[in-house]
Amino acid sequence: MQNIKDYIEANKQRFLDELFELIRIPSISPEKEHKDDMYCAAKLWKKIMIKSGCDIAKVMETEGNPVTYGEKIIDNSLPTVLVYGHMDVMPVGKEELWKSPPFEPEIRDGKIWARGADDDKGQAFMHAKAFEYMVKSNTLPCNIKFIIEGEEEIGSPNLKKFMEDNKEMLKADVILVSDTSMIAPDIPSITTGLRGLTYMEVELTGPKHDLHSGLFGGAVANPVNVLTKMLASLTNKKGEITIKGFYDDVIKVSKAERAEMAKAPFDKKKYKDTIGISRLSGEKGYSTNERTGIRPALDINGIWGGYIEKGTKTIIPSKAYAKVSMRLVPNQDNKKIAKLFEKHFKKLAPKSVKTDVRFLHGGESYVSPIDIPAYKAAEKAYTEIFGKKPIPVRSGGSIPIISTFEKVLGIKSILMGFGLASDAIHSENENFPLEMFFKGIETIPAFYKYYAEK
Amino acid sequence: MQNIKDYIEANKQRFLDELFELIRIPSISPEKEHKDDMYCAAKLWKKIMIKSGCDIAKVMETEGNPVTYGEKIIDNSLPTVLVYGHMDVMPVGKEELWKSPPFEPEIRDGKIWARGADDDKGQAFMHAKAFEYMVKSNTLPCNIKFIIEGEEEIGSPNLKKFMEDNKEMLKADVILVSDTSMIAPDIPSITTGLRGLTYMEVELTGPKHDLHSGLFGGAVANPVNVLTKMLASLTNKKGEITIKGFYDDVIKVSKAERAEMAKAPFDKKKYKDTIGISRLSGEKGYSTNERTGIRPALDINGIWGGYIEKGTKTIIPSKAYAKVSMRLVPNQDNKKIAKLFEKHFKKLAPKSVKTDVRFLHGGESYVSPIDIPAYKAAEKAYTEIFGKKPIPVRSGGSIPIISTFEKVLGIKSILMGFGLASDAIHSENENFPLEMFFKGIETIPAFYKYYAEK
Repeated sequence: MQNIKDYIEANKQRFLDELFELIRIPSISPEKEHKDDMYCAAKLWKKIMIKSGCDIAKVMETEGNPVTYGEKIIDNSLPTVLVYGHMDVMPVGKEELWKSPPFEPEIRDGKIWARGADDDKGQAFMHAKAFEYMVKSNTLPCNIKFIIEGEEEIGSPNLKKFMEDNKEMLKADVILVSDTSMIAPDIPSITTGLRGLTYMEVELTGPKHDLHSGLFGGAVANPVNVLTKMLASLTNKKGEITIKGFYDDVIKVSKAERAEMAKAPFDKKKYKDTIGISRLSGEKGYSTNERTGIRPALDINGIWGGYIEKGTKTIIPSKAYAKVSMRLVPNQDNKKIAKLFEKHFKKLAPKSVKTDVRFLHGGESYVSPIDIPAYKAAEKAYTEIFGKKPIPVRSGGSIPIISTFEKVLGIKSILMGFGLASDAIHSENENFPLEMFFKGIETIPAFYKYYAEK
Repeated sequence: MQNIKDYIEANKQRFLDELFELIRIPSISPEKEHKDDMYCAAKLWKKIMIKSGCDIAKVMETEGNPVTYGEKIIDNSLPTVLVYGHMDVMPVGKEELWKSPPFEPEIRDGKIWARGADDDKGQAFMHAKAFEYMVKSNTLPCNIKFIIEGEEEIGSPNLKKFMEDNKEMLKADVILVSDTSMIAPDIPSITTGLRGLTYMEVELTGPKHDLHSGLFGGAVANPVNVLTKMLASLTNKKGEITIKGFYDDVIKVSKAERAEMAKAPFDKKKYKDTIGISRLSGEKGYSTNERTGIRPALDINGIWGGYIEKGTKTIIPSKAYAKVSMRLVPNQDNKKIAKLFEKHFKKLAPKSVKTDVRFLHGGESYVSPIDIPAYKAAEKAYTEIFGKKPIPVRSGGSIPIISTFEKVLGIKSILMGFGLASDAIHSENENFPLEMFFKGIETIPAFYKYYAEK
């Protein structure tokens, strides 16, 4: 049998063809009209699991989108790895900004360009092909289970119940996830922390219908004017969040740990160039990596109200809306933060407007220990393939379900991500370098090897 | 020959049929795709003018939408009245909020419901039918000219040049306009002041594409967060506008004049109920009528940026936009204010974002004297038909072209409006009470009678 490198080389095109079939399904979970596509993706994942070597694979219902589960149990005395990934993707954003259609994957400049190329179709699919190699080469040293869900991008609202209902089926020793990034192609890293999330929507109502801004302007509170004042006050000049009680449960990271984190290489110019900004900003007293890694943040993800077409319309809008999300750090509780936000925001509102505050979704933060065998195995695997010891990194992103896994199933997760900051996930022109895709497939079997040695 | 009351009674249905034909044309000037509809409306106005008794009527080109001109010159020694109106209308807003289709006029509860029912198809059309009566009854005491333009709702960008090119044709002694409101059906009023307008659009750019708000949130300036802070700072807690130099040219209205204005009846409860708000607000130290009549105002007419569909998307948007307009009072210059706004706004912007500021349109304010014969004639006409002397009122709205008429043609305008605050112009469910429509047709010939007597 070939080694993994040769196996990848020999099957490259087939791997891409199979991945592209998956990418072509527009399984956009935030858009309800794609419900059927969710089932297409779930069924295709079942096919992928069987083809890769699973003995059992099935599409399982939840209250929302389906979950595809698969397994290959070789020996009950061996450790079991549960691979988690998601088949759903983000909306495409502005179609006209995509250089190639989001659901028609294209290879350019050594990268796969498509929605889901990285997050998380590309990354989850690496596990299927690494598994396929281990089965074919008879080197699989553990039992393996796959759980691929369809609601990660909307906060996994039904996966907790699914876990509770299927505790026995999901029993495992460790959860393996590829849904995060590395620092750079030549600087491997393992994500050891994820931020939590509280996602809110606010709605202000002023007059019962749009008013002529000439006849009424100056005498009637304009809900958009009011909303900008309310939102503007949520952060202060130091970049701190002003919501009362917001920082109460934040665990301050020790000086020693911050000093350790500061050792991670950070190319300020490259970081700025990649995202096209001329100046970094954020909370006073913290570095860029600290601002995203160990500190919470508040972002307005969307705002709308009044006349937003071309040209002019002279109105005082009746309504103004915003979507506001907060990234949370240990030990902030996402539901508690939602309540604090609602209370604070309603207090801010003048009596001239009506204010609605809605909680859209949330998830807890997660910190993974770096002294457990599974982390050590991942560390060795990266070191073997990339030639460098990976750096433990606290990511700013959220995979809310990771903390739920620990709560409900009592299993730790190892976040072996192979994405890059330039992959533009959640944005237009999402991409995934072929190099990272194939390196990922190469690294995963090494993890299994070292993990089984423990 | 019948008197005007009988004439209206006998021709009611025909008047409505003719007006409805005009309303059915979706002549929305802010939406470029309605360019053809503009020509349909212009041609129909030509037909209306001829049918009503004009000797000449023609559709005339401008750089933008056409103008329809008509005239009936009976005697060069008699005074000439130039009737100004507009055939274009505002966009419909949210179609689902209309109780009947915006371009399918319907009569319910004694009102005409349609876009343009009042502003300004209904009100301009009253002049055609009043003129028709005077011609048929042989009581027309003046020469009459009509100019109906197609770009009022976008700031009449081409009418100034049209005036300059057609000075001789447009020569007149007074301009008569029905494009404003009365205080109440039983409280006649004449608009003696109009506010000016400066309408701007701002665009903020942060990262070159939308970013994942988890990975970058806290470390990169979010242009929507930044925009809310910039916009929020444009007004202070007293409701004053903070743009440097903004108030420099504002003419302070004397205590005596304010005392006179305060005599106009104002039913606070009814005002609030009509627009559906529980509390009035605005600049400290001024009444509601003063806030809209003699003081400038700043309104965000629209704001947008980021994810504005249903559900959630966790992004730091690349772009954020707002449309901001300012209502101006004598002697503020709309172009000077645009420059002050641009300078101030750009100064507000942190270096972490790029800021574009665009001037969309503007117009000057207008104050009409109340001691000229034309005003007196209007006063007598209202008194005759409504049984009460009309109250001179400073309106908050803008008809920028009115000040241009005076500048270019040297002619004063009399604003004989028959709209009501409840007509919801520029909003969904625009309407015009049949009572006001017919009363308007009745009042106009009385103006001509008294004006010719001068």
